[in-house]
Amino acid sequence: MRLTAVLFAVLLPTAVSAQESAPAAEDAAVLRRIYDAALVDSPMYGQLRELVEKHPGRLSGSKNLEGAVLWAKAELEKLGCDRIELQAVQVPHWERGAKESAVVRSASGRTASLAVLALGNSAATPPGGRVAEVVEVKSLDELRQLGRERVAGKIVFFNRPMDRRHISNAPAYVGAVDQRTRGPALASELGAAAALVRSMTFADDDVPHTGNTTFPAGVAPIPAAALGVSSAQTLANLIQTPGATVELKIHARTLADALSHNVIGEIRGAEAPEKVILVGGHLDSWDVAPGAHDDGAGCVQALEVLRVLRAAGHRPRHTIRVVLFTNEENGIRGATEYARVVGEKNEVHLLALESDSGGFAPHGFNLGNAAGDAHLRAERWLPLLKPYGIHFFQAGTGGVDVAPLMRFGYTVAGPTQDAPRYFDYHHTAIDTLDKVQPRELQLGAAAMAALVYLVDRHGP
Amino acid sequence: MRLTAVLFAVLLPTAVSAQESAPAAEDAAVLRRIYDAALVDSPMYGQLRELVEKHPGRLSGSKNLEGAVLWAKAELEKLGCDRIELQAVQVPHWERGAKESAVVRSASGRTASLAVLALGNSAATPPGGRVAEVVEVKSLDELRQLGRERVAGKIVFFNRPMDRRHISNAPAYVGAVDQRTRGPALASELGAAAALVRSMTFADDDVPHTGNTTFPAGVAPIPAAALGVSSAQTLANLIQTPGATVELKIHARTLADALSHNVIGEIRGAEAPEKVILVGGHLDSWDVAPGAHDDGAGCVQALEVLRVLRAAGHRPRHTIRVVLFTNEENGIRGATEYARVVGEKNEVHLLALESDSGGFAPHGFNLGNAAGDAHLRAERWLPLLKPYGIHFFQAGTGGVDVAPLMRFGYTVAGPTQDAPRYFDYHHTAIDTLDKVQPRELQLGAAAMAALVYLVDRHGP
Repeated sequence: MRLTAVLFAVLLPTAVSAQESAPAAEDAAVLRRIYDAALVDSPMYGQLRELVEKHPGRLSGSKNLEGAVLWAKAELEKLGCDRIELQAVQVPHWERGAKESAVVRSASGRTASLAVLALGNSAATPPGGRVAEVVEVKSLDELRQLGRERVAGKIVFFNRPMDRRHISNAPAYVGAVDQRTRGPALASELGAAAALVRSMTFADDDVPHTGNTTFPAGVAPIPAAALGVSSAQTLANLIQTPGATVELKIHARTLADALSHNVIGEIRGAEAPEKVILVGGHLDSWDVAPGAHDDGAGCVQALEVLRVLRAAGHRPRHTIRVVLFTNEENGIRGATEYARVVGEKNEVHLLALESDSGGFAPHGFNLGNAAGDAHLRAERWLPLLKPYGIHFFQAGTGGVDVAPLMRFGYTVAGPTQDAPRYFDYHHTAIDTLDKVQPRELQLGAAAMAALVYLVDRHGP
Repeated sequence: MRLTAVLFAVLLPTAVSAQESAPAAEDAAVLRRIYDAALVDSPMYGQLRELVEKHPGRLSGSKNLEGAVLWAKAELEKLGCDRIELQAVQVPHWERGAKESAVVRSASGRTASLAVLALGNSAATPPGGRVAEVVEVKSLDELRQLGRERVAGKIVFFNRPMDRRHISNAPAYVGAVDQRTRGPALASELGAAAALVRSMTFADDDVPHTGNTTFPAGVAPIPAAALGVSSAQTLANLIQTPGATVELKIHARTLADALSHNVIGEIRGAEAPEKVILVGGHLDSWDVAPGAHDDGAGCVQALEVLRVLRAAGHRPRHTIRVVLFTNEENGIRGATEYARVVGEKNEVHLLALESDSGGFAPHGFNLGNAAGDAHLRAERWLPLLKPYGIHFFQAGTGGVDVAPLMRFGYTVAGPTQDAPRYFDYHHTAIDTLDKVQPRELQLGAAAMAALVYLVDRHGP
């Protein structure tokens, strides 16, 4: 691409035209100042670097997570919050232990090491490993139909890819992740020795993606791990001939619940401080993950919303509250406790906005409320937001941590990024700082600040 | 991000609802098939790998460009085109020669090597280099005001960054690139020894970005090079005290024009074959660049449009023509020749669509025509396209290569990606395959095929 014949206007989107009403002109001027503050000299990328490089692997129960809690508190102090709170939460404490391994041996004696990563809540194998035959299935239904007789003592291998025909990330993920979240428990109920799950990604590589799996009360946890995509393909090939086995070693353990904290900081509203606009992310990450996109990005964007609103000269009418949740990845205990306290104190929330789909540039927002019309009402702001690349509001939820607030009738939201790249990195060791592009991160924070401003000014 | 409380529909966007008219339902069904073909088992990423790994550095006049021409012809043959043509074009032939270098020496004798890359059309320095004092300016106007007396014999250093307040790439680039395209010529007119230009990027690194500079007839070419951003900052620091010099070595030369080719392949329309829908990209790239995003992506997307339309079972009413232009980067001779022939033959074009802003997922399209209403008329298709993440049509141009067709009254278009990442890689050695995400590339091709289908079916 080069210059010639590029006819784009070089003018910046600005505020005031003669036809605009005075409030619209004021809104446009504030939005311009918000974007200026976010795009020029933002500290956010440096904050993200600190978070992911000093406190990587922020899994619940880890020292790194509590280190991140103190880091976040210090950042809120620098922002001059009116109130800062560490909200205590008891969180699950699962540890991977020594590096896991899996080796497949075909009927003909050919062996291959598989890229493998234990899932959260996985049980351990015996220390020397567990050797068993493998049964491949594409769905939980298929596993059920096989029945105990053909599953007991085997390693169940869930190998249904995400459906490439989906346009958005979320339905592709939701449409496959039952294999990871509920597959190992079903395998356990049928007497399986262990479970292996193809990673939730479209990437054509061999990076295993961990994530949580759940064993309901009464179902014995079994060893369970994710496989990289090419390892899944290798395994599928080598078990074509009956008699192949996998030797799996997992050293995980589940400890007693640990103390963690939601980190809360707020600027008190000037007119109706009892009404809250929440902007959040989650501090925890998987143990192997630096957690740059998931969800270091959301955390620094939440902090940045406070900073840019102030830099833009906006004095909030309502209380603007940053909440950096703990334990999103394997328990949602932080969100549960936060919602419990909101209910107990009857704290009205005008909006609860969470960025938890990566530090990419959003092109719209999801908005959800009980009436199902929050996104339709927000469309009145599109003329103000389109010059900034925000083109739609759609019905949907915000992040997982704000979803529980919907039961009080509050409106939740999240930026709609839908970057296909997100699932290349999600829950992996390669979710590193270099995968986050500074301006994409900044455009996300600016859009969030713009929405917070508009709700503060005009209501949701 | 994890599963719980994610309320997104897992259903794919599909075609038919009872309220839809029959044509709308048919359109929706074809679009679904187009996206299925593009997202499942596309050969496109493999094609891009071949193009950028076997034929990198496809600058006009190079063997690599003509290798890419033959590669593209072979790909069109595989697609079973009704007609393939190599349209001969004489193109400029500029060569970088041996690696350039620049070393700054401050008044106190401190030296630093600068990351430097000669600009297209740069003259050479004497073989042993050129040493001169440096005068820093932020604009062409500032240089004009300095005048010959303070410029003659010096190295002019253009150091105005792209304006970070812009939301979109194009105006940020256009707002700064005059320093590169016209700055060296102005410096030459004022007697300067050479010119250095801060790279056109927001990236916080030291990768120099080349690009074309122009010396009008009668203006003697001088040595001219881009500096990496940190090198530009280093240089700005070290010349604070008068007396600093830069030693610049550039070994470039301009040879006689060379023979190149636009590569054209088409599927003849079943109903009105004399009317053409063009989908294109440009085959050439800068000599140092693999040219994955710029514009290998656009080339393989253009090929893919033909493939997926066929895979979707669409029999075009009008002729669908792929044009892979030569010499976009430093002359636009391919586009000029193509437009000349279109004028000569009076070939009617319903649409000329070029992807030349990277292989990212688009969220809308630019559409341009003489009346300025093409984008407004296209909005009737938004309900069909929104399920696929296409949210807007806006007034604008397509790529540089299709812009000349506007003078015949034809409609031009380009996908609007606006990915901030694009200018991290543009015109650099790091515009490599790994920067292109396969699904983003596929979503772009699918959106282009969808637009081509809609125009073929309903007119622009």
